[in-house]
Amino acid sequence: MTHEVPAVVLLSGGLDSATLVAMAADQGFAPFCLTVRYGQRHGIEVQSARAVARQLGAPKHEIVDLNLRQFGGSALTDDIAVPKDTPRHEMGTEIPVTYVPARNTILLSLALAWAETLGANDIFIGVNALDFSGYPDCRPEFIAAFQALGRVATKAGVEGNDNLVIHAPLIEMTKAQIIQRGKQLGVDYSLTCSCYDPDDRGLACGHCDACVLRREGFERAGLPDPTIYQEVVNG
Amino acid sequence: MTHEVPAVVLLSGGLDSATLVAMAADQGFAPFCLTVRYGQRHGIEVQSARAVARQLGAPKHEIVDLNLRQFGGSALTDDIAVPKDTPRHEMGTEIPVTYVPARNTILLSLALAWAETLGANDIFIGVNALDFSGYPDCRPEFIAAFQALGRVATKAGVEGNDNLVIHAPLIEMTKAQIIQRGKQLGVDYSLTCSCYDPDDRGLACGHCDACVLRREGFERAGLPDPTIYQEVVNG
Repeated sequence: MTHEVPAVVLLSGGLDSATLVAMAADQGFAPFCLTVRYGQRHGIEVQSARAVARQLGAPKHEIVDLNLRQFGGSALTDDIAVPKDTPRHEMGTEIPVTYVPARNTILLSLALAWAETLGANDIFIGVNALDFSGYPDCRPEFIAAFQALGRVATKAGVEGNDNLVIHAPLIEMTKAQIIQRGKQLGVDYSLTCSCYDPDDRGLACGHCDACVLRREGFERAGLPDPTIYQEVVNG
Repeated sequence: MTHEVPAVVLLSGGLDSATLVAMAADQGFAPFCLTVRYGQRHGIEVQSARAVARQLGAPKHEIVDLNLRQFGGSALTDDIAVPKDTPRHEMGTEIPVTYVPARNTILLSLALAWAETLGANDIFIGVNALDFSGYPDCRPEFIAAFQALGRVATKAGVEGNDNLVIHAPLIEMTKAQIIQRGKQLGVDYSLTCSCYDPDDRGLACGHCDACVLRREGFERAGLPDPTIYQEVVNG
């Protein structure tokens, strides 16, 4: 496969965005991966992102530092406890405390900057509206609004050459469907990290919403979960 | 005057954004000032921003570091020469090399994050469509598109409580009008720095587009220019 058309792909190091990189490449794009270290509690994500970008042959991987802890307001960037063992039927019924204010707006704006300097018209973001319907910036209307903004925000917009597309191919997929698709495309999920609250060794807690959804996804996909959970190692 | 309603005001340390802070306060907002150190060549801007925030009584001033040099593509963040002595009639006819890709999208997205944690519905940005008609992200359609995005991007958007307003009160003002308004409101312009290419002492070059427009603005406003230019000190 030749990758001649550059696209910026937002890569967190989690299961969804790893699948996204593989999907972008499968569509014929050269996936220029962008990871933002925004003050998450868990630096392990960035190591996962590096490993995923390497495994999937990204032509370039930029890691941008941006301290969103200055604004706070989230369990991922502030001194707020990450919820554990949320009953499955309660997930997505309200906005979780793991929501980071304006995070996807910020991530997409950084992707837009890099896309403009690369001359890329395509940006991929791994948002999902099914499992986490609670996040405002994972909804289709948010993606549509950002695409409309991006088309007037850059030089191409002024020149009437506004072909920007924000791709969110995971938005309507279940976790099991995402995993099955990634497996077909050769994603090595043992490199990825989904946990909101890993320990110092980078091992997943197994109890936060992200762990619960990931585990359930592998079960429903009928595939072995390669994740190493703390409790397995400890006990 | 009581300032009870918080607003996030993007403050670069230049003439326009200093005026903006004073205008926001004059409208009854408590101006929470946000400065982004995005890898500009000139760190002096941030010192100016600090002085302006202090002079105008900002309740809080956050300075966020974000290295846009990683993406490049601008004379302000890359190894591209800042143009000097551009003929006045040529300014604004095309997009200048001092345009920073997606800069205002990024600045507004950071302001949106802070606004959400503050519970603020109002964001002020000092864009100007007259003097720099060449910048894509200084146009009214860009501001309108960002406001539309912001109204679906946050918790308030999900809750149908989408009262976000992006204020760009300088957008149709001339530099002379901006200076006159700021003077009325007590802005000390000697604290501000507009130059794209100041020297190590922080002194303005006097020849970049920003210096030319500033100088002309004071002349047309009939007010003394407090800027200390390199040539005056050197010669």
